[in-house]
Amino acid sequence: MSAPPASVRIVEVGPRDGLQNEKTIIPAATKVELIDRLSQTGLRTIEATSFVSPKWVPQLADAAEVFAAIRRQPGISYPVLVPNEQGYERARAVGASEVAVFSAASEAFNRKNINASIDESIERFGPVLERARADGVRVRGYVSTVLGCPYQGEVPLADVVRVARRMHAAGCYEISLGDTIGIGTPKKAREMLLAVAAEVPMQALAVHFHDTRGQALANVLACLEEGVAVVDSAVSGTGGCPYAKGATGNVASEDVVYMLEGMGIATGIDLDRLIETGLWLSQQLGRETSSKVARASQ
Amino acid sequence: MSAPPASVRIVEVGPRDGLQNEKTIIPAATKVELIDRLSQTGLRTIEATSFVSPKWVPQLADAAEVFAAIRRQPGISYPVLVPNEQGYERARAVGASEVAVFSAASEAFNRKNINASIDESIERFGPVLERARADGVRVRGYVSTVLGCPYQGEVPLADVVRVARRMHAAGCYEISLGDTIGIGTPKKAREMLLAVAAEVPMQALAVHFHDTRGQALANVLACLEEGVAVVDSAVSGTGGCPYAKGATGNVASEDVVYMLEGMGIATGIDLDRLIETGLWLSQQLGRETSSKVARASQ
Repeated sequence: MSAPPASVRIVEVGPRDGLQNEKTIIPAATKVELIDRLSQTGLRTIEATSFVSPKWVPQLADAAEVFAAIRRQPGISYPVLVPNEQGYERARAVGASEVAVFSAASEAFNRKNINASIDESIERFGPVLERARADGVRVRGYVSTVLGCPYQGEVPLADVVRVARRMHAAGCYEISLGDTIGIGTPKKAREMLLAVAAEVPMQALAVHFHDTRGQALANVLACLEEGVAVVDSAVSGTGGCPYAKGATGNVASEDVVYMLEGMGIATGIDLDRLIETGLWLSQQLGRETSSKVARASQ
Repeated sequence: MSAPPASVRIVEVGPRDGLQNEKTIIPAATKVELIDRLSQTGLRTIEATSFVSPKWVPQLADAAEVFAAIRRQPGISYPVLVPNEQGYERARAVGASEVAVFSAASEAFNRKNINASIDESIERFGPVLERARADGVRVRGYVSTVLGCPYQGEVPLADVVRVARRMHAAGCYEISLGDTIGIGTPKKAREMLLAVAAEVPMQALAVHFHDTRGQALANVLACLEEGVAVVDSAVSGTGGCPYAKGATGNVASEDVVYMLEGMGIATGIDLDRLIETGLWLSQQLGRETSSKVARASQ
């Protein structure tokens, strides 16, 4: 165990991972306003949308419209999710300069979700990475189901390590390790992170926890203690879990920032503005915020 | 930092600390059923009720009736809160064999709540401890506002240590350190615990976190890493916070047990039964459970 990092970069995934799992579909203009508001909070990375087929993610069918309309600020990166070359082209057409690719670490999850093995799914984003390299576009990689899978249950650590290593070798500057179904606990999160960090530099790793079982912040803490310095989260704790009804989604950015700043770990984020943005968003979605820090502020 | 303990004792405080802060007042028979159900989950300590004046805690005005009716099981302790000798006598009259006394670590909180200084509040429970010693009654001590106070803000560590040390010296077998307003973060929780543990043996300490800002499980984790092996929690995460509207109350026992068991730390608790009891309780209270583990199980 090492000392926690002196500063942490928050990757705000609410506009993509959060909204794609919300029942309520909000208008493109509201999404644009959300991202523009987030750009004023001190965040340096805001995942803006997804160019996955609208057939699969109707919530983000307006990806091109949203991305074209946001007021991009200097010093902030706005990655977008792309499933394949076609998605990459759509993203590039509206000026995206950072993209994200993804694969589950679970064979069963990949087969069920994209009808491919882990190896096939990695092969599929190969062309995206090649084109991105040629275009000078940065690529982030998501590994999902790193602590468990709704179909196969346990996911071997070796599979998580293999996917992360291949993403890194293929040119992803950062690999986000995601507990997609929010099933992990701190000891397992720590062990998973350390197993990956034995093959991919810690500085190239991020952690991504869903709060399905209330474990997300404790898992973040365990990983901070091992030296991870990038944390994915979603303002207002948006999202849900298709595998657990009534479950909460991504860990709330407000609660992560509150913890980090309380521990003396700098985030560069204005927590009051973030809370305000989250409360505004929950109004747009017509539901209570999932951020406890935001609730306590009211 | 040491290794987490191999096993943890959960002190279930829902029937007292939880219910005393719920808006809905449930009938005595329901409280009795709650405690009897909890007695079947593997818990070894269940705080049953409070003999504080009904004027201050109308939710638990039926303390004597409830305590007399529960089916006490061998091997389980059922402490009750007592504010003074009069409360102690009422508790003893119905057969309580363990009691709990309390004091805030904050001067301002004590003055506002019980119109006494810290020293006066400690003097007040002196007679209770003397009588308990003579009667062979075990006494638990609660120190509240250990990480912050709604009136004075910061609470000096020295005050927390002083109250805990005096409770221990006066004969409390265990001191529960409570973040009453749920304002703390892991680094501060850790530092507070270590400061107290420098003067009171770690084996005599428990931690008690409210989840007002979502930090409770992370705080528990940080304290486990320092060797604490007793954790207070409330089934279904009952309770609230009079100082933050809409805030959640005690950390949910289900979520704590899920984390501990997931880390290989034995609790002796049947999580499924605990979840079932919490869901039943939330029905009685007419509100959604605050346990995310319980929500994910539905």
